[in-house]
Amino acid sequence: MRILLIGAGGVGGAITKIAARRSFYEHIVVSDYDLGRAESAIAWIADRHGADVAARFTAARIDASDPEAVASVAREHSVTHVMNAVEPKFVQSIFAGALAAGADYLDMAMSLSEPHGTDPHNLTGVKLGDDQFAQAGDWEASGRLALVGMGVEPGLSDVFARYASDHLFSEIDELGTRDGANLVVRDSDGNEIFAPSFSIWTTIEECLNPPVIWEKDAGWFTTAPFSEPEVFDFPGGIGPVECVNVEHEEVLLMPRWLDAKRVTFKYGLGAEFINVLETLHLLGLDSTTPVRVRSANGPVEVAARDVVAASLPDPATIGPLMTGKTCAGVWVTGTGIDENPREVYLYHVADNEWTMAEYDSQCVVWQTALNPVIALELLASGAWSGVGVLGPEAFDAEPFLALMAASESDGGYGQPWGLDDRLAAA
Amino acid sequence: MRILLIGAGGVGGAITKIAARRSFYEHIVVSDYDLGRAESAIAWIADRHGADVAARFTAARIDASDPEAVASVAREHSVTHVMNAVEPKFVQSIFAGALAAGADYLDMAMSLSEPHGTDPHNLTGVKLGDDQFAQAGDWEASGRLALVGMGVEPGLSDVFARYASDHLFSEIDELGTRDGANLVVRDSDGNEIFAPSFSIWTTIEECLNPPVIWEKDAGWFTTAPFSEPEVFDFPGGIGPVECVNVEHEEVLLMPRWLDAKRVTFKYGLGAEFINVLETLHLLGLDSTTPVRVRSANGPVEVAARDVVAASLPDPATIGPLMTGKTCAGVWVTGTGIDENPREVYLYHVADNEWTMAEYDSQCVVWQTALNPVIALELLASGAWSGVGVLGPEAFDAEPFLALMAASESDGGYGQPWGLDDRLAAA
Repeated sequence: MRILLIGAGGVGGAITKIAARRSFYEHIVVSDYDLGRAESAIAWIADRHGADVAARFTAARIDASDPEAVASVAREHSVTHVMNAVEPKFVQSIFAGALAAGADYLDMAMSLSEPHGTDPHNLTGVKLGDDQFAQAGDWEASGRLALVGMGVEPGLSDVFARYASDHLFSEIDELGTRDGANLVVRDSDGNEIFAPSFSIWTTIEECLNPPVIWEKDAGWFTTAPFSEPEVFDFPGGIGPVECVNVEHEEVLLMPRWLDAKRVTFKYGLGAEFINVLETLHLLGLDSTTPVRVRSANGPVEVAARDVVAASLPDPATIGPLMTGKTCAGVWVTGTGIDENPREVYLYHVADNEWTMAEYDSQCVVWQTALNPVIALELLASGAWSGVGVLGPEAFDAEPFLALMAASESDGGYGQPWGLDDRLAAA
Repeated sequence: MRILLIGAGGVGGAITKIAARRSFYEHIVVSDYDLGRAESAIAWIADRHGADVAARFTAARIDASDPEAVASVAREHSVTHVMNAVEPKFVQSIFAGALAAGADYLDMAMSLSEPHGTDPHNLTGVKLGDDQFAQAGDWEASGRLALVGMGVEPGLSDVFARYASDHLFSEIDELGTRDGANLVVRDSDGNEIFAPSFSIWTTIEECLNPPVIWEKDAGWFTTAPFSEPEVFDFPGGIGPVECVNVEHEEVLLMPRWLDAKRVTFKYGLGAEFINVLETLHLLGLDSTTPVRVRSANGPVEVAARDVVAASLPDPATIGPLMTGKTCAGVWVTGTGIDENPREVYLYHVADNEWTMAEYDSQCVVWQTALNPVIALELLASGAWSGVGVLGPEAFDAEPFLALMAASESDGGYGQPWGLDDRLAAA
């Protein structure tokens, strides 16, 4: 397996760090629009793991917006798998470039949605991933695999859903992805500051888009942003967090392969963050349309959303200032395989203190990066195989969860996952 | 009386419109950094009142930041009174320029404060108007008058306080300025939009500065922003509005001339607006320090607060989209002249529908502009006179309130004011 990693930012950098401890691949080309960033990622590996390990990585410059450029770099390095780790706006160009180069493809976020033109809070327009699924025939005809949505959410959440479907339930009422954290960022004086752990630009995009829900009878439909608030009790010491519906890939993926009455995604934004997003929207500060503003050099035109992002700390730099844990998982309700009512939460927790110590990587970013590396290892070993455009739930969950949970000394990733049997606990 | 009006923006423009209906002055020079804006104000007068009235106005360009330039324009036009109607950051240069030209001076906001260096939420630093009062000796020595804080709040509120002190109370517990409105702005589809009726830049400045309070025993002290929330019931159909402490000139002016145990200012921001200001502060979007931001022409540097202002509708343009009323007044508690407990609210209400129809001027801006014109008329007639740096409460309130309330056919401004006897009502 020869991998072309596109993007050496937060998640891309963490992918190289995690992969550096594994040996399932022959070579990884770490590419970025900014070559220096790719080189820095490999320098970290040389520093931490030595020159021999670093020799399995090559830095390259790439323009992710150009399918030809993607295909050209992939061909040049005889790449078998293209790993997309850049912003979702580049999904379509990388997706096309990988197919053109005859490589398999993985991503962690799918092609973007467009709201319905006249009734956006009830009806779907272009859905997340629609553009990719429309090309499934081409991938099948080429005998190539596109494994889409293979981060933590979507990704690990979809693996959990498949596991619940295969091993825990005879009938599923709801597959409800639930994401929450108790992360706190403090400045050098120890005062808590507002510093989102993920790009505010992307968070605005996903949280202000109309959330999508799937129901067996109704199919996909949308609601107003921040709908159906619910306090979900997260494990690992995180505790109760207010969650709301957010547009997310799981809702588009799970119903294609798994049988459930309802599929949802709720994000534990918390009341403060929801208020911040609603206020930004009220003031038009979520806008990406440039406005004319005075500056010391005369009037300039900037997008308010870019100014919001520039005014907040860079999420990539806040790891050392952050404490707490982040939890990703799926809450499944329905009828258990013993035909009794059952409610379980399948989850994985990442502790920022640990990810910083082990990987110099902030926990939200690291938890995202972990899962595509495991998936690549399963594809390399043949434990997973497939053709066409497939979500994580199209594959057997058991080898994934076993490899993730096994200790490093046993050849695994040392990342146990949890199962809360909530009806039993209640 | 020959007046130099500096600033032909919202309030300055309304001053010219109100003055155009009066005859107490010989000439008004309407000046602005943007000559076209001064010319437009006079063109409106020509259009509405004819060439004869417009001939009493001259447009001029001025740099309000330069005391020499201010003095030069004042001398050139043999000006007797300089009327400052620009942002408070220009107070010091205009104040100095007027004195240098030997003119009297009026403003509607005083020199800016600076928070205390180490304990800003308890102790005052440089207070509003400190710089101006420090120069009182120079004004007295020159025999010239600086009438400071002569808008609606400060201004009319101080006049009301003096009236209560002279005519209604034998002992005052609190002089509490209370400002509230029920203004609503709707877009062309009739949907309510967030559009402050006053400069968001200035509102951020005054609302995020530590509010100042005066008490007879403690003198001036500060609190945290938005302290002591109180629901105040405003007259004129406005009803209850949540008010909080805000830094304002009345608290610095009234104790210098009037006897009271406590002096406060509370602004009826309402819960939504308070939340907006707190959220802007949380995200650092109130900042005036430039941040580096991407733009179509490469990176630029802009202040987030300027971007917030640029993203909202221009307050000067929302008059036609606005409905509702604004109320300014003083709530006075203590012992009445009959030695019984007394609580009164003295107030003036401006209805946007009326100010738009009569003056093409949004009500908040128009209500501010009304009061300095009345004051100038009292100074022209000799009903008011003085030397030094004086607040409105240094003058007899009765001729002001009488001239304001008298109908236009009786030579007044046709603006009745109200007195709510609240203890009696309770």
